[in-house]
Amino acid sequence: MDLYTGDINQLITELGALPGIGSKTAERMAFHIINLPHDRVKRLSDIIIRAKENVKYCKECCTLTDQELCPVCANQKRDHHMIMVVENTRDLAAYEKTGKYEGVYHVLHGAISPMNGIGPADIKLKELIARLEGDVNEVIIATNSSLEGETTAMYISKLIKPAGIKVTRIASGVPVGGDLENIDEVTLLRAFEGRIEL
Amino acid sequence: MDLYTGDINQLITELGALPGIGSKTAERMAFHIINLPHDRVKRLSDIIIRAKENVKYCKECCTLTDQELCPVCANQKRDHHMIMVVENTRDLAAYEKTGKYEGVYHVLHGAISPMNGIGPADIKLKELIARLEGDVNEVIIATNSSLEGETTAMYISKLIKPAGIKVTRIASGVPVGGDLENIDEVTLLRAFEGRIEL
Repeated sequence: MDLYTGDINQLITELGALPGIGSKTAERMAFHIINLPHDRVKRLSDIIIRAKENVKYCKECCTLTDQELCPVCANQKRDHHMIMVVENTRDLAAYEKTGKYEGVYHVLHGAISPMNGIGPADIKLKELIARLEGDVNEVIIATNSSLEGETTAMYISKLIKPAGIKVTRIASGVPVGGDLENIDEVTLLRAFEGRIEL
Repeated sequence: MDLYTGDINQLITELGALPGIGSKTAERMAFHIINLPHDRVKRLSDIIIRAKENVKYCKECCTLTDQELCPVCANQKRDHHMIMVVENTRDLAAYEKTGKYEGVYHVLHGAISPMNGIGPADIKLKELIARLEGDVNEVIIATNSSLEGETTAMYISKLIKPAGIKVTRIASGVPVGGDLENIDEVTLLRAFEGRIEL
């Protein structure tokens, strides 16, 4: 439908192509942007370009950052002998928010998914292997507990263990505050299998 | 929290300032943008600027458009003697989606709200009055059924009626498919008051 004219339509289309943005939200965002002062619009447009241009992979852990080394890798107080492997930068951020993890990370930028044609060579795995030549005590695999995440965890584990490095997997189970009746059976079974003696 | 470095943080902040975008969505959008191909990012950045620069008010109905006259006002098949008054361009689009309204519109870009210091002079009212000097049969007031929308409807009605122009208000009541038990009392009362003999 041609409810709006050229530029408005295009803006709505571009915004609506972003993840999590339905057509209603895209419309609302577009009109909001059009009504913003010129300098705010310029700032938004500029930062989009700048972020794209300046953000690269951390040369150590492959997370997205605009510096050579991300803040975690650059921090000498962190335990650089403990590497947590995550699928993406947002997962890293999620663990950082806990404020409790003191090791460093490795960001795969994906997970192995034969269904979608994503193999071990398509994620940052060889960068992880390269890091293991240093002095690493433990690799904690914190990929998602999806099929792809589990496959990736298995693959990495089989790859690393022979080198005598301790490999662990984050626990899966009932989320804290979760209501049992609303939790899927697979999770419930996992929680049962992973039960701990009190 | 400084989970992300400079440019990523700034991008998340700018995106998060848009309406309907929470911090999680802003994060997801930011990383999505960073991972897009360069030409897509350029296109998004450009259309934001272009939409802001090119989109103006339609010189007839004040809706946002990148042409002199919006498609509705430019359409000679529409009934230009019937004007529906709406608060904003999205409301116009909502009525256009019905495909049934054959008149034209007038977009106020707001509603009278003494609480927020918005008076009659702050919305496109004098532009509406100017249009009434032409040959207008009916003004349909389709402002929201909020306090501000009702106030605006009353104000416009009092202003126009003495000139002998027919002024109507869209009906309020129970939405089609709405479940009575989930509808607020004011709406239920309105639906009762507005009941029609069958």
